[in-house]
Parts: sequence; structure tokens; C-alpha cells
Amino acid sequence: VQEAQETRLRLVTSAADLASLEGLEGVSIGRLARETGMSKSGVVRHFETKEELQLQTVAATERFREAAWETVAQQPPGRRRLVAACTSWMTYLAGDVFPGGCFLTAAATEFDGRPGPVRAAVAAALATWLGALERDARIAVDAGELAPDTDPRALVYELNALALAANQARQLFDDDEAPARSLRLMLARIGHPTASARP
Amino acid sequence: VQEAQETRLRLVTSAADLASLEGLEGVSIGRLARETGMSKSGVVRHFETKEELQLQTVAATERFREAAWETVAQQPPGRRRLVAACTSWMTYLAGDVFPGGCFLTAAATEFDGRPGPVRAAVAAALATWLGALERDARIAVDAGELAPDTDPRALVYELNALALAANQARQLFDDDEAPARSLRLMLARIGHPTASARP
Repeated sequence: VQEAQETRLRLVTSAADLASLEGLEGVSIGRLARETGMSKSGVVRHFETKEELQLQTVAATERFREAAWETVAQQPPGRRRLVAACTSWMTYLAGDVFPGGCFLTAAATEFDGRPGPVRAAVAAALATWLGALERDARIAVDAGELAPDTDPRALVYELNALALAANQARQLFDDDEAPARSLRLMLARIGHPTASARP
Repeated sequence: VQEAQETRLRLVTSAADLASLEGLEGVSIGRLARETGMSKSGVVRHFETKEELQLQTVAATERFREAAWETVAQQPPGRRRLVAACTSWMTYLAGDVFPGGCFLTAAATEFDGRPGPVRAAVAAALATWLGALERDARIAVDAGELAPDTDPRALVYELNALALAANQARQLFDDDEAPARSLRLMLARIGHPTASARP
């Protein structure tokens, strides 16, 4: 059972890498078999359909995100956690976790026009991440760490905008400074506690 | 000759629509033949290879953008033209020019990990648009219509971020208010001339 789990993890990791470069739709059973040196029947033993493979791939990247959040969650809720989350986010975009940039952004753009379980899974994954940020933004506002007229949802909308720009600039224009630029802009929006901030 | 041009335009328009929904890579000669009711050999007469079809599709959407810019360019250079461009941009994202959202954003995300002529064409198209905005931002700064410490390039980076967020929110989360929200945030950055603005 453990060996099967390891093989499956290797397959979805390879699928996520491929998907970040060429799109999730390009990751067929046959392509994945070639990429990993397995037989097609070997791959099919783990994922009966292409959609099953796509869903498992989205689920696997969710586990990466959860692991990243565990580190972020060591910070106290509110502004400090929001700063940690943005820093972790832009460090991820500046690194090479996936060879073609953020897997989720690529999958979101690819599947936003195709209703079905994959689109729903991608939307749910992104909503979970943005929802976590929004919770901390709300805590920060309530604690006086952010200006009282801050709309947590609107703030996270802007943070996400900057993340999308960083990913596009790095992937399409080879602008490796973009994640750092986006992080500076993010911190300019969340980095300045108001005078009434709790000590 | 004119009939051939019209057929070709119909083919690339259909290709752009399909690509906005399912990705440019999914637009094969065969798929396009089925979609338009033409024979495969009929399509091949216009585009010998899939790459040629993809490049012509990018080029066709460039002509849409150029037409939009002609209207924008009726405004005087500088802040007013920048406002017109952002308004036109968000109106485009709020409408249904393509059934799956911005063709160029979809193609950019899809091809950013695949070096070659299509990626280069997509990057050039986006750079042309962003470059035009940057020129007007620079004129606006020089004219005192924007704060003197405004970095035109950084400003356009933020405008593009907000456009990406609007497209993702509308396409993935069915948030039809997103383009208007992004436009408000854009105008908040460019809509306030400084006191030293020329009359």
C-alpha cells in the first residue's frame, strides 16, 4: 500500500510539473507514462480516467499549500500572519516549486471556461487560500493593526492581483524581480499598523 | 481573394473564441473544421500548421486591440487617455468579446512555459498594450497630472495586476462585479491629479 501511495505521489507530482508548463489538459495518461517511464496500464492502475488524474493532481498541490500554511500559521493571527503568508506566497513564486510557475494559476486560467469537477476543485483551492488571508485581514482590522476602514475582502483582492502580476511577469517576461516587487507593494498595503494598534 | 480573407477571419475568430475557453493548444485543425463546418483540407488551405493557426489567431486579436486603442487615442495623451484605456480594458473584461474571458491572458498563461514563436507573439502583444499605457503614464507624470514620484512602469504593473484579478474573478468565481471593482481601484491610482496639474 505504501509503495502504491509513493508511486501515486510521484505521478501527481510529475503531472503538476507538466501542467504548470503545458496545461493540465495536456497531461494525458500516455504522456504521464512516457514522462515517468511507466507503462500506460501502470498509470491507469492509479487513475482510471484523465479527469481522475487531474483531480488528484489538484488535490496533491493542495497538500503543498497546506504544508506552507503550517509554517505561516506559526505566526500570531492578524497582520503578522498576513505578512508571513504574503512573504511565503512570493517566495514560492520566486522559486521553482513548479517549472512553469504557479500550478494553480495555470490550472485556473485553463479550466475557468470548462465547467465541471476540475474547475470546481481549482476554484475551491484558490478560495481556501484567499479565504485564509481574508480571515487574518479581518482579525488585523479588528485588532487595529490595519486602518479601520479596510475592507478585508477588497484588500485580499488586491493582494491576489499582485500575486497574479508577479506570476505573469516572471513566467512570460522572465522578470525575476517581479515577486519581490509584488511583495513590496503587498507590504505597503498591510505593513503599516495604525497608531491604535495593540502593543 | 476577399472571400479567402473573410474565411480566414472567420476561422481565426472561431479559434480565438475556442482558445479563450479551452486553450490555444486545444484548437487543432480538426477541431476548427468541426467547429466551423469546414473540411479539414479547407482549413489547411488557410493554415498549414497548428502553429501557423495559433500565430494568426494571436495576430487577429491584435487587430481587435488596435481598434479599441483607436477610440482610446481620441483622448488627449496623459492621464485622460490612461483613464480611457483602463475604462475600455475593464469594459472589455466585463463584456463577452470572448466567451472564456481575455484571450491574451489565457494564451499568456498557457504558453509562458513553452518557448517558441507563439509565446513570443503573446508576450509582444501584451508588452505593446502595457507599453502604450506606460507612455501615457509618463506623459501624465511629466504634465503634473500624476504625483511627481510616480514610477510609470510600477503604476502600469499595478494596473495590469488589477486587470488580471478582474479576469480571474469573473471567469473562475463568476464575480461579474470584478471588472468594475478593478476599474475603481485603477482610477483611485490615476484619477487624482496633483495640485500642480496643468489646467
